[in-house]
Amino acid sequence: MKVRVSARGAARILARHPWVYKSDVLEGPQTPGLYPVQGPRGSLGLALYNPLSEISVRVFAFEEADSPLEALLANLRQALARRKAALMAEPEGAFRLVHAEGDLLPGLVLDYYAGHGVVQVGSAALEPLTQRFVEVLQDEVAMESLLAKNNHKPRSLEGLPLEVRPLWGRVPDAVTVREGSVLYRANLKEGQKTGAFIDQRDNRIRLEAFGGKTALDVFSYHGSFALHLARGFEQVVAVDSSPSALCRAEENARVNGLGNLITLEANAFEFLRAEERRGARYDLVVLDPPAFAKSRRDLERAYAAYKEINLRALKLLAPGGILATASCSHHLTEPLFYQMLAEAAADAHRSVRVVERRGQGWDHPVLLNVPETHYLKFAILEAL
Amino acid sequence: MKVRVSARGAARILARHPWVYKSDVLEGPQTPGLYPVQGPRGSLGLALYNPLSEISVRVFAFEEADSPLEALLANLRQALARRKAALMAEPEGAFRLVHAEGDLLPGLVLDYYAGHGVVQVGSAALEPLTQRFVEVLQDEVAMESLLAKNNHKPRSLEGLPLEVRPLWGRVPDAVTVREGSVLYRANLKEGQKTGAFIDQRDNRIRLEAFGGKTALDVFSYHGSFALHLARGFEQVVAVDSSPSALCRAEENARVNGLGNLITLEANAFEFLRAEERRGARYDLVVLDPPAFAKSRRDLERAYAAYKEINLRALKLLAPGGILATASCSHHLTEPLFYQMLAEAAADAHRSVRVVERRGQGWDHPVLLNVPETHYLKFAILEAL
Repeated sequence: MKVRVSARGAARILARHPWVYKSDVLEGPQTPGLYPVQGPRGSLGLALYNPLSEISVRVFAFEEADSPLEALLANLRQALARRKAALMAEPEGAFRLVHAEGDLLPGLVLDYYAGHGVVQVGSAALEPLTQRFVEVLQDEVAMESLLAKNNHKPRSLEGLPLEVRPLWGRVPDAVTVREGSVLYRANLKEGQKTGAFIDQRDNRIRLEAFGGKTALDVFSYHGSFALHLARGFEQVVAVDSSPSALCRAEENARVNGLGNLITLEANAFEFLRAEERRGARYDLVVLDPPAFAKSRRDLERAYAAYKEINLRALKLLAPGGILATASCSHHLTEPLFYQMLAEAAADAHRSVRVVERRGQGWDHPVLLNVPETHYLKFAILEAL
Repeated sequence: MKVRVSARGAARILARHPWVYKSDVLEGPQTPGLYPVQGPRGSLGLALYNPLSEISVRVFAFEEADSPLEALLANLRQALARRKAALMAEPEGAFRLVHAEGDLLPGLVLDYYAGHGVVQVGSAALEPLTQRFVEVLQDEVAMESLLAKNNHKPRSLEGLPLEVRPLWGRVPDAVTVREGSVLYRANLKEGQKTGAFIDQRDNRIRLEAFGGKTALDVFSYHGSFALHLARGFEQVVAVDSSPSALCRAEENARVNGLGNLITLEANAFEFLRAEERRGARYDLVVLDPPAFAKSRRDLERAYAAYKEINLRALKLLAPGGILATASCSHHLTEPLFYQMLAEAAADAHRSVRVVERRGQGWDHPVLLNVPETHYLKFAILEAL
């Protein structure tokens, strides 16, 4: 059995983009699985196939192989090999071991939290292979437990049930992760994503280099950036709208023996507006908002919202103050992100120096051929 | 005496862009100099003014001050203060001490090469103040000599003569600079720019982290990247079209005791084409071309040229090979640069991972408000 795709579908694969939409599939098997892909001019490689999904074809190898399954498992082993040195150096750290398309493993995400794994399977073609992945993992990575956190929405599009269940070992309620000079508790079962936002790890550690009097961490979640800032700043304010996240931020502050971290439950927009009104000044502000643009339709409104918080944050900065600002919305592309920041700087009447342009951590690989793999923008700016 | 600008000119300054074009100047003095700037709604700050130049107004302070000259010298002192720690740590290194608009000192460039300075004055309003800059420099930076390398073209637009002359001390023919694990000889009087390309310093040092069998440095100048690669790679080929630059590359290789650096005089395009024909393979390729797009008019042709060399370089890479690729052309913006690279990857049928997005060194500050300050793009890519 093969999947036959149109010339347009074949052109995408030849350009090394793994996705072919249903409308470009000419003929294919009735059941999801791993299949060779055929274009008008011959073989194109191997793909996950699901006739029910809008993105029916997701290529994971650009050459044919005797065993599609072995080729897929080879990609998994290679992804793990890439992280091996980091795991050896920091077994108590947190890393993404598999980043879906970025690791040529479409539909598969696997995160590591200090010896405990969390896997998300987002493809009907992969679902029956879960046990095979588990076997490779048990061979390659030292882990005490593995949780299948299969409650993310894309599964519905693949016709898969939403469920959270342990695949091996005893999954703890929370895991203590070491990150730079900080410890934090990640809540694997109940927390956002797979428990924390690993993609910002290196950016959080980067901010440990800064110091001063007052720092502000807006959209702080469980104290993510604030904990790292509390070493270098006399006082750090962590703002979030979720009382349970802030409760864990306080617990994290205690674990690190930090007495200078204040938590504040507030809507970020209202808080920034009020701080501007009262003429507050900070030496460093972090903005790490959730994705305001969940779809292309939202983009215009989201752009305005990003600009508003960045404009206000710039106004709160003391001379020479630092703004560390992120967007994890794929739809707000990197060029748009920097255009938005330039407009905010112009409207704030502040000269703003670009200290560093950063993005998602190295363990969330970006492929030039697959723009969808690049989603996190992170800028460190100095307001002169 | 004041310079009066239109509402449009005032809006640019309020957005913290320092340039106002001649057409937006309503009234101004007859001679170049430092003057307060006035908009329809009041004072806008202080500027270099030259009635003959297309960019007549270049703001250096966004507030008025009793002495415009003292305000200008304060910006110079601040620029030097920003580099102080680096100079203390690496007195034998090379750094840009003043980066024109990026340091709120329009028209002024000052580079430091292991105790020797090179200054470029590109504004008729600054020219008569040269001696005042020299006094501040003598107070703040330990330097044996200072060369005025005033032979760059923008001076003609300001009505200034082209000349190269020492301002103090004995300027040596060449200076030995330490950069990462490498020494190189910079030719201050005769070399390109102020003697070398300091803006790529941190990128060159970054590549010392890579190793393998064969590396290729295309547009190598005096062995710029090749020297750093020769530690980690068994054999390094440095290609340039200038025999005199390659002669200095060989001298630099000798200074570092490197016997594995081969120089090759060739046109880069022809060389890459020939290497592709013969099926050559490299573990790492550096592309550090001169600005192909010197003006916006050139952009389309330049884009095609950048794409051609990057496409060919990708084809030369062994699996897992690294492409380190740059563009110093301001007109090829960062978004266009990455679009060009994505197209090259698609056309080369290679999956390409973005290892790191970099740019000009920290001592060449980029201001969000002044897109013209951002010119150097540098990508480290892995061809899977």
